Amino acid sequence: MSAERGQAGLPEGPQCPLAVGGHEVIVMAHGGGGRLARQLLEAVFFPAFEADGTRVHHDGAVFAAPPGPLAFTTDSYVVRPLFFPGGDIGKLAVWGTVNDLAMCGALPLALSAGFILEEGFSMATLRRVVQSMAAAARQAGVSIVTGDTKVVERGCGDGVYINTAGVGRVVAGADISPRRLQPGDAIVANGDLARHGIAVLTQRPGFEFENAIDSDCADVSGQVRALLAAGIEVHCLRDLTRGGLAANLVEIAAGAGLRLRLEESALPLADEVAAVCELLGLDPLYVACEGRFVAFVPAAQVPPALAALRGAGAPCPVMIGEVSAACPGGQVILRSRIGGERLLDMPSGEQLPRIC
Amino acid sequence: MSAERGQAGLPEGPQCPLAVGGHEVIVMAHGGGGRLARQLLEAVFFPAFEADGTRVHHDGAVFAAPPGPLAFTTDSYVVRPLFFPGGDIGKLAVWGTVNDLAMCGALPLALSAGFILEEGFSMATLRRVVQSMAAAARQAGVSIVTGDTKVVERGCGDGVYINTAGVGRVVAGADISPRRLQPGDAIVANGDLARHGIAVLTQRPGFEFENAIDSDCADVSGQVRALLAAGIEVHCLRDLTRGGLAANLVEIAAGAGLRLRLEESALPLADEVAAVCELLGLDPLYVACEGRFVAFVPAAQVPPALAALRGAGAPCPVMIGEVSAACPGGQVILRSRIGGERLLDMPSGEQLPRIC
Repeated sequence: MSAERGQAGLPEGPQCPLAVGGHEVIVMAHGGGGRLARQLLEAVFFPAFEADGTRVHHDGAVFAAPPGPLAFTTDSYVVRPLFFPGGDIGKLAVWGTVNDLAMCGALPLALSAGFILEEGFSMATLRRVVQSMAAAARQAGVSIVTGDTKVVERGCGDGVYINTAGVGRVVAGADISPRRLQPGDAIVANGDLARHGIAVLTQRPGFEFENAIDSDCADVSGQVRALLAAGIEVHCLRDLTRGGLAANLVEIAAGAGLRLRLEESALPLADEVAAVCELLGLDPLYVACEGRFVAFVPAAQVPPALAALRGAGAPCPVMIGEVSAACPGGQVILRSRIGGERLLDMPSGEQLPRIC
Repeated sequence: MSAERGQAGLPEGPQCPLAVGGHEVIVMAHGGGGRLARQLLEAVFFPAFEADGTRVHHDGAVFAAPPGPLAFTTDSYVVRPLFFPGGDIGKLAVWGTVNDLAMCGALPLALSAGFILEEGFSMATLRRVVQSMAAAARQAGVSIVTGDTKVVERGCGDGVYINTAGVGRVVAGADISPRRLQPGDAIVANGDLARHGIAVLTQRPGFEFENAIDSDCADVSGQVRALLAAGIEVHCLRDLTRGGLAANLVEIAAGAGLRLRLEESALPLADEVAAVCELLGLDPLYVACEGRFVAFVPAAQVPPALAALRGAGAPCPVMIGEVSAACPGGQVILRSRIGGERLLDMPSGEQLPRIC
């Protein structure tokens, strides 16, 4: 009888009602082709992912697609801890892939989900993760239509890893690529930086912060749709995940062969996030977000772009810089509050591992 | 200086030419958003997956899709050992997903690949796996257009896990589903059973078999295309992966509410595979294949179906049974060589973990 069960006030009996085939944790056979694997599908995955009437097939799903170009993307999620203020691995796995489609100017048609479970992983925790994914998908207006589960031996995994892939339809007329950047384009961010990395980091053993910082983890596809629907000529989009604002802009600058200029005084950063970064010696420009992106738009369209973002729920949209001039290899320059200039580079090591 | 390097006769020098950013094994920063992650993409993934001119984007890929319904599928691959007679994790990861699309009557448009790497994993082995994936994709006429890499700490993984997802276009007119099964349909298999599971199992430490058995691991999409092109009215398809012939047919019978009858004397099984199964006490009907499938077709179309499969390179296509009658809950019955009948059931445990 687990402590959890007593706490939940469940009736005493020979088997926990949350168990699958009598197992309260994952066993190797949950990943086989037999009865336990079937029971796991029927007890945990189907009820969550078919709530909207979609059938999760084993070999694959078939669906009608509107004409026009498709976007396709994938990400694996290995974040630790699994649950953190403002989100969890399930929300990340769904919204992260929806956001990657949005960065291609695409709205999601369907998602897949692949689980790698470690023998001994709690069935109750798996249910919680799966239900969070289902809720996140509902919120983003997309279905998880196909999936897969593998089980690895104890010590060959870390509870649960999730891969999602997404297929989306590119919004008519959208043509989004670093190659479309032009000198004079404005760089607009949809909200404050570095929340997600700090939210996850400060939940790890060894950190004791009084006030939890919420992750910025969010579905931004509605914000992208709003920009495009407002007729903004979006040249490029990039979500500020691994590597944060700096690494992502350096990559875009390199791809475009252009110099980008950022104004430090314009960068949105919450006081409490800045304080933790200073305490830990982290540069917030390199800390990952999971619900923040930059849009490159013609300078003349900044006011309507900010209005569109605000109208779609972006927390604090703001212009943070501009595309200045051609520059072979690309360059990102930060103009500091006191007028000095700093060249931003790719980070050489990794500041914060397993934050997504 | 590694032994491998000396053996390969490479020139002496401060750094192995197969290293990435000076590292001959995966380090945590290869999974970050910084310079090492970029170097891993440029040294290992892009050269393999862009050989055909396709650009692997970071956030996602965009491609034109012909009109008509799409199929979408995903699988994670955790097989051990990574390399086995007749295949490796890379081939499985590509062909397994191509085959799942084929089982929907779809030909592949694009694949994604997500890697979960364990800190300390050999860069040379990763290159070998990635090159095998690229070769398998070329052979199947599909590109890996988008991907992702995560790195987990030593002891939180097992070298490499791969997830692939695939998008395909359903062949015009194909309508493939257990619901389309009809009494009188013939069950046709494309080749001999149980090779893959036995090939992998007998490579594990502790087994010493003189003659290696080759996995049946293969791309079967050409065989499915041949069936459809020959005008065969294919009612359902199922590849015989986890759980083997028996578990997959039990699942189909249940989905269709029909009784299936198999003739033991018709089941194709290589002598050496039968011998190993007998020695180890394994039932070959439950051992997984990775290049074998069954097709449910009208009885009158068996000869042209077998001819189409043979023409497309199926190793030994044969009719193995038939759909007999309605049966609530479904049933699969095996008629033995001496005329007895055996009811096949779902396996309750797992015979062979991590064979895919």
